[in-house]
Amino acid sequence: MSQLTTPFSILYTGHVEVRVTDLERARAFYVDTLGMVETEREPGKIYLRGIDEPFHHGLTLRKADCYGIGHHAFRVSSNDDLDSLERLHKEKGLPTRKIPAGHEKGQGEALRVEDPMGFPIEFYHEMDRAEGMMGKAAYKRGIEVMRIDHVTNYTNDTNKAFEYYTSVLGFSATSYLVNEKGEMKRVFLRRKQTTHDVAFLQQPGPRNHHVAVWLKNESDIIRACDILATSGYRDKVELWPGRHGPTSLSMYVRDPEGNRVELYHEDRLFTGPEYQHVQKISSSVEDTEMKRGFPFWGMPAPRSYIEEGPPVESIIDGSLKPSNPPILAPMV
Amino acid sequence: MSQLTTPFSILYTGHVEVRVTDLERARAFYVDTLGMVETEREPGKIYLRGIDEPFHHGLTLRKADCYGIGHHAFRVSSNDDLDSLERLHKEKGLPTRKIPAGHEKGQGEALRVEDPMGFPIEFYHEMDRAEGMMGKAAYKRGIEVMRIDHVTNYTNDTNKAFEYYTSVLGFSATSYLVNEKGEMKRVFLRRKQTTHDVAFLQQPGPRNHHVAVWLKNESDIIRACDILATSGYRDKVELWPGRHGPTSLSMYVRDPEGNRVELYHEDRLFTGPEYQHVQKISSSVEDTEMKRGFPFWGMPAPRSYIEEGPPVESIIDGSLKPSNPPILAPMV
Amino acid sequence: MSQLTTPFSILYTGHVEVRVTDLERARAFYVDTLGMVETEREPGKIYLRGIDEPFHHGLTLRKADCYGIGHHAFRVSSNDDLDSLERLHKEKGLPTRKIPAGHEKGQGEALRVEDPMGFPIEFYHEMDRAEGMMGKAAYKRGIEVMRIDHVTNYTNDTNKAFEYYTSVLGFSATSYLVNEKGEMKRVFLRRKQTTHDVAFLQQPGPRNHHVAVWLKNESDIIRACDILATSGYRDKVELWPGRHGPTSLSMYVRDPEGNRVELYHEDRLFTGPEYQHVQKISSSVEDTEMKRGFPFWGMPAPRSYIEEGPPVESIIDGSLKPSNPPILAPMV
Amino acid sequence: MSQLTTPFSILYTGHVEVRVTDLERARAFYVDTLGMVETEREPGKIYLRGIDEPFHHGLTLRKADCYGIGHHAFRVSSNDDLDSLERLHKEKGLPTRKIPAGHEKGQGEALRVEDPMGFPIEFYHEMDRAEGMMGKAAYKRGIEVMRIDHVTNYTNDTNKAFEYYTSVLGFSATSYLVNEKGEMKRVFLRRKQTTHDVAFLQQPGPRNHHVAVWLKNESDIIRACDILATSGYRDKVELWPGRHGPTSLSMYVRDPEGNRVELYHEDRLFTGPEYQHVQKISSSVEDTEMKRGFPFWGMPAPRSYIEEGPPVESIIDGSLKPSNPPILAPMV
Repeated sequence: MSQLTTPFSILYTGHVEVRVTDLERARAFYVDTLGMVETEREPGKIYLRGIDEPFHHGLTLRKADCYGIGHHAFRVSSNDDLDSLERLHKEKGLPTRKIPAGHEKGQGEALRVEDPMGFPIEFYHEMDRAEGMMGKAAYKRGIEVMRIDHVTNYTNDTNKAFEYYTSVLGFSATSYLVNEKGEMKRVFLRRKQTTHDVAFLQQPGPRNHHVAVWLKNESDIIRACDILATSGYRDKVELWPGRHGPTSLSMYVRDPEGNRVELYHEDRLFTGPEYQHVQKISSSVEDTEMKRGFPFWGMPAPRSYIEEGPPVESIIDGSLKPSNPPILAPMV
Repeated sequence: MSQLTTPFSILYTGHVEVRVTDLERARAFYVDTLGMVETEREPGKIYLRGIDEPFHHGLTLRKADCYGIGHHAFRVSSNDDLDSLERLHKEKGLPTRKIPAGHEKGQGEALRVEDPMGFPIEFYHEMDRAEGMMGKAAYKRGIEVMRIDHVTNYTNDTNKAFEYYTSVLGFSATSYLVNEKGEMKRVFLRRKQTTHDVAFLQQPGPRNHHVAVWLKNESDIIRACDILATSGYRDKVELWPGRHGPTSLSMYVRDPEGNRVELYHEDRLFTGPEYQHVQKISSSVEDTEMKRGFPFWGMPAPRSYIEEGPPVESIIDGSLKPSNPPILAPMV
Repeated sequence: MSQLTTPFSILYTGHVEVRVTDLERARAFYVDTLGMVETEREPGKIYLRGIDEPFHHGLTLRKADCYGIGHHAFRVSSNDDLDSLERLHKEKGLPTRKIPAGHEKGQGEALRVEDPMGFPIEFYHEMDRAEGMMGKAAYKRGIEVMRIDHVTNYTNDTNKAFEYYTSVLGFSATSYLVNEKGEMKRVFLRRKQTTHDVAFLQQPGPRNHHVAVWLKNESDIIRACDILATSGYRDKVELWPGRHGPTSLSMYVRDPEGNRVELYHEDRLFTGPEYQHVQKISSSVEDTEMKRGFPFWGMPAPRSYIEEGPPVESIIDGSLKPSNPPILAPMV
Repeated sequence: MSQLTTPFSILYTGHVEVRVTDLERARAFYVDTLGMVETEREPGKIYLRGIDEPFHHGLTLRKADCYGIGHHAFRVSSNDDLDSLERLHKEKGLPTRKIPAGHEKGQGEALRVEDPMGFPIEFYHEMDRAEGMMGKAAYKRGIEVMRIDHVTNYTNDTNKAFEYYTSVLGFSATSYLVNEKGEMKRVFLRRKQTTHDVAFLQQPGPRNHHVAVWLKNESDIIRACDILATSGYRDKVELWPGRHGPTSLSMYVRDPEGNRVELYHEDRLFTGPEYQHVQKISSSVEDTEMKRGFPFWGMPAPRSYIEEGPPVESIIDGSLKPSNPPILAPMV
């Protein structure tokens, strides 16, 4: 198979740390409305998981002075992989930092790196098991988020992101859009057997575009909009249910801080590299297409959806990574 | 139009009184799981409504020494209609009883009659308004029953039921099944613009077959099964989601007492008598067809679904009406 | 009941005549893609019906030199009603015209009037029966439109529309939006037991906003977008699936001419006037709310959806009614 | 990770060969009604694929004198794996047979073996690419089967099946049911990241229970029943839509020959072995549970569903493998 053989094995996007200024306000959104489960909390942090996640956390809320993404984390197949990945990133002159076991509750030793595009990435293997809540009556409430699925980012250099993720980390590109000059405009990359674990859009970065969580069914996407609309988040709905491609359905909402969350459902299984989808696009229509929010159904997306996105932080000092042009005001 | 002109005007099936031996156990089923709203209670009674019902009650739980149906009630267009209907039934020698305002909380004066097949029927016009809960976040829980829809009964004489409801009360038959000897095997009758307010099946009676409540969408029928299965009612699911005709979807569950509830969704609107549907059936295949539970999709229904049904009570003394052959044991 | 008693009885919106410049191109959209059934054609006209309509036509395509609406038609309960309605409109000095039986194929005698806002309305009672196609395998294709549901119009005087439809024609207003000066901004009016047969929005008129057809289920609205997107109408999708209120789901598409079609599903049944919904709105937020496209879910609608609409024609000479400010260019 | 490391790598269930006595009658079912795509045919065989399968075939219809399963095939990661697997099975004294490239149209060299329970298994790596039809308007028809998903079999020795598939072939058991004596009653085994590629039920075998194909959404399962019911297959519907566990929805239909097809949708992704689900069951309730058809929702399955199943053939001479007690009559 054409996927690169690496001395380590990345499994899937395992969790994301989301920065929020008000933990309780964020908890009301992610737990009471999205239906995630609180596993544990410590001062300044609440650890959450989806109802079908058998691990300690899939999404962490961390108190910070500004919204944004702390890091997103890939699970690897063993602790040894952490050493291989540390060596690899040091050789490339990229910032790395070992995170001791327990620094994130329930998690073993981890490695954080800044990738070549400036994003804060974590690798880890061990995490405490937690009870799966799927099918428990008490968790048939709210939007019933099943699990974290992927992260989508803005970057100034999508070609570089493609190169790093496929040739260094061993991801497969399931889909990309490229113009006749060879400039990649967006790329979807995966390790697990779905469309993506991470994706990149060509826009000023490094910034996040959204964090995607998985819902069980298309009708749950519709129901999610109803629950948001009647729970005080009507004006946070940024994009109604639509398709990116023939098998996904998703909608976008801003959390009370401005972080963008995609409620996502897709039914294509990528069991082999044969499912790769390359779209050629001419420069002349590229701008129009990017403004569509990439939809399968037509209708242009609102400008905020096309242009705005949360900042990401440095793995070294937690400062926000600069982005030029500067980050636009969030929809709050 | 072919609907009979009557000196009174029946509007729709407005509420049903359900007999239960354990009020709190029944409340856990109808409120906590079906998602109905408790409007008010009094000793021995709890008044419920669906989340889209703007009236005091659509379903009443009444403590009794045995499960069954107390009465089902048609709303009429004015209080004067009650007098017309009382005269009519007295002339026919049928039992009648005036019910003073407030006997049922929130309800004006009412009339109870025993119809020619032995069923306890109530007519009423006035009922207190109550707040509609549709779209309120606090009521986005459980199965989200919207409203009472219809009642289906077993009778020994479906032809007589057809005659009384169409020629005396002014209902339209939207569908019936009749064999070559002119024996009607089932009939669906309506005043509101849907398939039925009441239906009759040819089986030993008078007995009830089920009380039907309305769900908003087909996906809600699927979700209802999940909620029942994870709320302690897995073994009360009697029939999985199926279709009676091309536009309905429903499933059947027994309440903790044995009363049968249909969770129902249908999208055909009967704006005129043109939608009437007559099915001729030969006696030779009649038995096979009746055992199907009348489905559009094939698969025979379980025997309990075909044969069992709750008793109904006398409007005079509340005793249970005899049925021959006797009522089978409920699925408890 | 509070609905006005009239010497005639309007039943429901029965059909709409849609003007198109290219009959075959329009047929490809309405029949091959929307899934309507062609009942009959004559030079310059194609008569269509939804798969659950038991009548000759619910939507007529008529060749014209410009897109727009020819007329929309209310079915009444008898031919005598046509005479009552003719007298009534003549007394008010409104234009009327008797249409002989057979002028529209399959239809008996009819009456056309221009209502006080300048809209072309037809009343009729008799129409040939046609076979219902619901549940026939050959009609399980395309979007499976079940039936015509309602028409929504732009008018300069929504208060006048409300007055005429309720106090003269006997409609019930199920919902309206009014500011503190008593200016009505939109109103939904019905005779059948659903949200509306006709609605009016306060915008320069007389113009149509959309013709709404009924789909069976919420999942069919999603599927409709897929079928449109893969049938050459991706760029005609104007608004993705969204809710106006807690129980409807719909999306909007332009036909190849520019006429706007709403694919609509709603599950609230209006069995009595109790369901009326009045919204008070302050002038200060009125503009913002109107720009939302009135949604339940947030997200502003595209400008074209808020401002554009097809013209309507005169019942006398078929010329297009002037609208000031002038009609914007359609989205083609 | 706990999955066994093997000198070969099985990827997923790639295709199934189904025996039919009448190719055209079978084609009408699988292509015209299930919506599969005919890739190619040769005398006695028709090669089909689902609309989201990018390969030559996922299901082959082969003319035979009796219904049943010819073989089911696992795709492996390289042609070298075929030699490893041949050696392995020869060492165990199990029948093997090399199949030259092109014997199945579009397929490279393959290996057939008889597994220890007597089932005909094929391994292959190379197969011609074919156009994916997902999102093409012409394939928005019928039930829109996306791809083959898994095969479920009856065997006399489920413990032996578990041992062979996990310890020899490197599958993971995602779920199994075992009584207090250690007797396994059913087991679900997977290589791809879903619940199963193959499953075994404890019943007289070797026999097939069903072949499962994947539908995109829960609403498509409902729609599938409608299409079957209106396409002449009403009486072939054996089990209405129901859940085995909290995240799957499926229904069962017999093809015109008697082969059982599961129309299946599931939304749990098995990215790691942590999702394994073990159910302990006491012998005393085991029989009751097995009769349920293993559902999550209650309701016993029909006897035919519990007891009947198509035969499988010998990889050596194509004769049907004996099963004791004998195979019951199929539902035809």
